[in-house]
Amino acid sequence: MKTVTGIGQASWDYLGLVDEYPSGDTKKEVLQWEEQGGGPVATALVTLQRLGVQTRFHGVVGDDREGDRIRESLTDEGVDVSGLRIREGSASQVAFIVIEQGSGKRTIFWRRPTGPPLEPEEAGALFLEGADFLLLDGLMAEVSIHAARKARSEGVPVMIDAGRVREGMLELARLSDYVVGSEEFARDLGFDGDTEAFRHLLWKEGFPVTTITLGERGSITFNNDEVFRTEAFRVDVVDTTGAGDVFHGGYIYGLLEGWELRKTVIFASALSALKCRFMGGRRGIASLSEVMEFLRERNAPFFSSP
Amino acid sequence: MKTVTGIGQASWDYLGLVDEYPSGDTKKEVLQWEEQGGGPVATALVTLQRLGVQTRFHGVVGDDREGDRIRESLTDEGVDVSGLRIREGSASQVAFIVIEQGSGKRTIFWRRPTGPPLEPEEAGALFLEGADFLLLDGLMAEVSIHAARKARSEGVPVMIDAGRVREGMLELARLSDYVVGSEEFARDLGFDGDTEAFRHLLWKEGFPVTTITLGERGSITFNNDEVFRTEAFRVDVVDTTGAGDVFHGGYIYGLLEGWELRKTVIFASALSALKCRFMGGRRGIASLSEVMEFLRERNAPFFSSP
Repeated sequence: MKTVTGIGQASWDYLGLVDEYPSGDTKKEVLQWEEQGGGPVATALVTLQRLGVQTRFHGVVGDDREGDRIRESLTDEGVDVSGLRIREGSASQVAFIVIEQGSGKRTIFWRRPTGPPLEPEEAGALFLEGADFLLLDGLMAEVSIHAARKARSEGVPVMIDAGRVREGMLELARLSDYVVGSEEFARDLGFDGDTEAFRHLLWKEGFPVTTITLGERGSITFNNDEVFRTEAFRVDVVDTTGAGDVFHGGYIYGLLEGWELRKTVIFASALSALKCRFMGGRRGIASLSEVMEFLRERNAPFFSSP
Repeated sequence: MKTVTGIGQASWDYLGLVDEYPSGDTKKEVLQWEEQGGGPVATALVTLQRLGVQTRFHGVVGDDREGDRIRESLTDEGVDVSGLRIREGSASQVAFIVIEQGSGKRTIFWRRPTGPPLEPEEAGALFLEGADFLLLDGLMAEVSIHAARKARSEGVPVMIDAGRVREGMLELARLSDYVVGSEEFARDLGFDGDTEAFRHLLWKEGFPVTTITLGERGSITFNNDEVFRTEAFRVDVVDTTGAGDVFHGGYIYGLLEGWELRKTVIFASALSALKCRFMGGRRGIASLSEVMEFLRERNAPFFSSP
């Protein structure tokens, strides 16, 4: 059985469904309100668990109610949380996510953990033991760079989930084997829709294989000279929260299976689309049999790829 | 000792401070996150308690964590919650309030209780016993109209906190002795800044004494032929959440003291301004000595009024 180690964010998410995202200084009635575990790395690991991959999470929470919920939401899925540190007297990562009915748009208000980030020495000597893959989101820059270097020296492949260009992000990208990032991240780097110019920029910056997710417009993957696009699967979108996180989980699954890149990206897109049919980052994460059935139903080019 | 009965909303508020209210479909980091009791009637009663007035709250919560917090936040202040009903298997009123740093603007995402509203028979025969005043916010229309009629027949003065023109609101206004409403409420009624036209409209609609709060632009009060404006006190505004609720509490205090209307409104404005120096609806609610000291410091026309 394959094992994936993740270092990064775990959040406790409050979700509110509204008919329309409001302008400021008004009152808006929420039609549906719920709570769910979230956070880029944590949700990607939950995705891998549902696909049958063993995972370990390293990160921090506070000693608060949300920290307890975050831990439970991971252990309930079988994620190994022995690397989850509790920061006494501090608060956990939380978010309030406004979901606009019918549009698939979500606005995320998030607060990072108030305690100190995970330290490189806390990741310990063993965080890569038996690991087949390392996933980072780069929010805790120091421990992430430490971990990426160590993985590199041990031959463990690394993916960075790149949300924005933050401190340490470019160094992390160069230390990684896969950069899977958002459109905002690509724009931060200078992407203006000109694919060839962006391919050249990534090459100049020393980026590895890079996939940029574009929501309902699918994704673009840059692999040296090769550039390919994939379409997003059409589903009845309830909420796109966590769509990117689930994409990362699916992407890693494909890589662990040894699939070709295009097949891997199609698989990740299918998982991501299935998630969007439900509110919150995790409720809609499909099992392996569900996503395979969906790919068959849609006659996806998945089965014709190596 | 005077007693005020309130029937209406009690909320558990999550508050997030941001540098700027974001446009939709983005991620915004929250600088400060906290939780606090809220809700129009509940916060007005807490205001009265801090001024030394005895209060009783009637409303509903769910059997959830937020319901427990709502109850505690009231009993901690000395509010009598024997009229607070727990709806089994339902969720309490909650809100997420986005506070924009420096601007005093707040955007409220709120979810009403998911259980059934308070029924007229649940208010019981005794909800007005010993009451010197009744405060309503009209969200639960049926019980509010029942209570207003009963108060009228027993000679207990009634104030309606009018947020918007909802079902039953006009009937409630006519049954009340005081309508204290927001600018949105006035606009719903047709107020376009023409004070004389609005005075005529209120008279035609059979409204009693009506005060419209205008945030940093103060307030306008309509009392038959008399119309007067008051200025808002200038303070370093952190958060305007609950400013209206605290205004209602202060207004009732002045009426119970037998103060003239203008003096009452100045007192309510001072309390409201003091609240705005702190985050959340309740932390900044002043005591009687604090507000009196503030009024003296500012040389407010409070002391020259009858």
